[in-house]
Amino acid sequence: MILVGVDAGGTSTISIAYTCEGKFIGIGESGPGNFHNVGLENAVNNIRDAIYKSTKGLKPDVACIGLAGLDSKYDYEVLSSALKDLAKDTIIEHDSFISLYAETRGKPGIIIISGTGSVVMGYDGKRRLRVGGAGWLLSDEGSAYWIGRKALRLLVKMLDGREEKTLLADLILQKLSASGLDDLIKWAYHEGHKIEEIASLAQVVDIAANKGDKKAQELFYLAAKEISNNAIYISKKLGIKTAYMSGGMFSSKLFKSYVVDLLKKEGIIALDKKKSPEFGALLIAFDKAGCINEPEEPHLHS
Amino acid sequence: MILVGVDAGGTSTISIAYTCEGKFIGIGESGPGNFHNVGLENAVNNIRDAIYKSTKGLKPDVACIGLAGLDSKYDYEVLSSALKDLAKDTIIEHDSFISLYAETRGKPGIIIISGTGSVVMGYDGKRRLRVGGAGWLLSDEGSAYWIGRKALRLLVKMLDGREEKTLLADLILQKLSASGLDDLIKWAYHEGHKIEEIASLAQVVDIAANKGDKKAQELFYLAAKEISNNAIYISKKLGIKTAYMSGGMFSSKLFKSYVVDLLKKEGIIALDKKKSPEFGALLIAFDKAGCINEPEEPHLHS
Repeated sequence: MILVGVDAGGTSTISIAYTCEGKFIGIGESGPGNFHNVGLENAVNNIRDAIYKSTKGLKPDVACIGLAGLDSKYDYEVLSSALKDLAKDTIIEHDSFISLYAETRGKPGIIIISGTGSVVMGYDGKRRLRVGGAGWLLSDEGSAYWIGRKALRLLVKMLDGREEKTLLADLILQKLSASGLDDLIKWAYHEGHKIEEIASLAQVVDIAANKGDKKAQELFYLAAKEISNNAIYISKKLGIKTAYMSGGMFSSKLFKSYVVDLLKKEGIIALDKKKSPEFGALLIAFDKAGCINEPEEPHLHS
Repeated sequence: MILVGVDAGGTSTISIAYTCEGKFIGIGESGPGNFHNVGLENAVNNIRDAIYKSTKGLKPDVACIGLAGLDSKYDYEVLSSALKDLAKDTIIEHDSFISLYAETRGKPGIIIISGTGSVVMGYDGKRRLRVGGAGWLLSDEGSAYWIGRKALRLLVKMLDGREEKTLLADLILQKLSASGLDDLIKWAYHEGHKIEEIASLAQVVDIAANKGDKKAQELFYLAAKEISNNAIYISKKLGIKTAYMSGGMFSSKLFKSYVVDLLKKEGIIALDKKKSPEFGALLIAFDKAGCINEPEEPHLHS
């Protein structure tokens, strides 16, 4: 029996294949799997590629595919239908759920993801509760995009005199190769909405904050507070006291320390995630197939 | 001598033509004049159309054109060059300046514009100071878009349980023909960024606020506070105590009353604008040409 776990993400798709006995078969990697960004056909092709690379061309018995962009029931309908033939039994899952499952294998826990976007999801073994995760316009509090957008709006206030200008202003202008408000306006509206570029400004905020910029520190604290509040809400609703932190924002030590401290005050322990999302998807496939072994995660990528 | 005042706006362009003696020649109307939205060629054609309709086909001696979308020095360069041949002497101006000039004819004053976007500009007879007005991503505090976006984000919190659900949630869902979060996500990202539609949610917030919805009232108060703070900043910098309110947001009595009260506390009198922007542009043309008469505004549209 061949079991497959897939993480179909915004930048790449990774699949791992195992036997029911827990023996590693292979790993496959391909292009983006978020159909909102690359279209359904490309996403399905990339996911198929990754899966068949990992199985050396054999059709899996059970494949669990964790998907970025599985945000509404419409997404679920479209993706269910498009992916159902990739294995004898195909399970599709929200990417936050496979990430959590990698750490807990179905035991209670909260996952806090903050990358370009953000989402907080809790699972108590029966019920799931998810907050945020509705994209750059509607939610994603405490994400890199959320921080980048706030930083840009603060920058405008610094440039037109409403706020005192700090190091943060110089660093953002430098990053965008802009000399002032005129350049900034040109950059912002000239070629459509630059979600990834805006999100990447969170790194600049991190640099400024580490150099002692108070405005940058305040912004990070506000972001940490928003996402921590989402986790606290879920913790209270589901009675769970352990959370796992995942996503690019947690590579900032400062941001992470704010989140850890804020959650600690509410009695919640925030831990680093240790395992990959595709490994979580694999565990779901194992549990669905009734395979009781504990596969060991391959250390082929970080 | 033929003098022309033009308001080249986001939805239409209006031109009025007068003689130096203050005699009305004609009015011309055409399509949008904001080149960010309709492209440079269309904008220039619409502006030309409106002008020549108003002059009955004669080339104006002086034309002052107030432009939406004249937001950076790049815009200024592009538009100066594209519009210079429409009259013997062509003056281009930011649309906030012509609106203010219509009320003050160059005397000190502050104009507060809040429509889809927002901007606050002050002129003390010599210096101009403008804050905000850098578009939906970078600023536009207290505008209809700003309110609509906040309302959407609040709605998501109401739908996923983080905030108590109020009337506002039902009204927005109804307005968008959405039954819940799934529909909302589909609406938000399916066909690009709906700036006008998001801005139109400010009307829904107004309805909810008038029916006693506390969250809707808070949101309007926050918006009024943001735009009032911008006006207070300019008032202090330039020492001006009179402000004029313009734009669709002020058709909400509640929003307007918040702004009037907040400014009153700082000793600033907020007045309704009485005259049209194109009339302000005409006055600038009069002053440039040295025509001392006071033309009487035609009452051909409101």
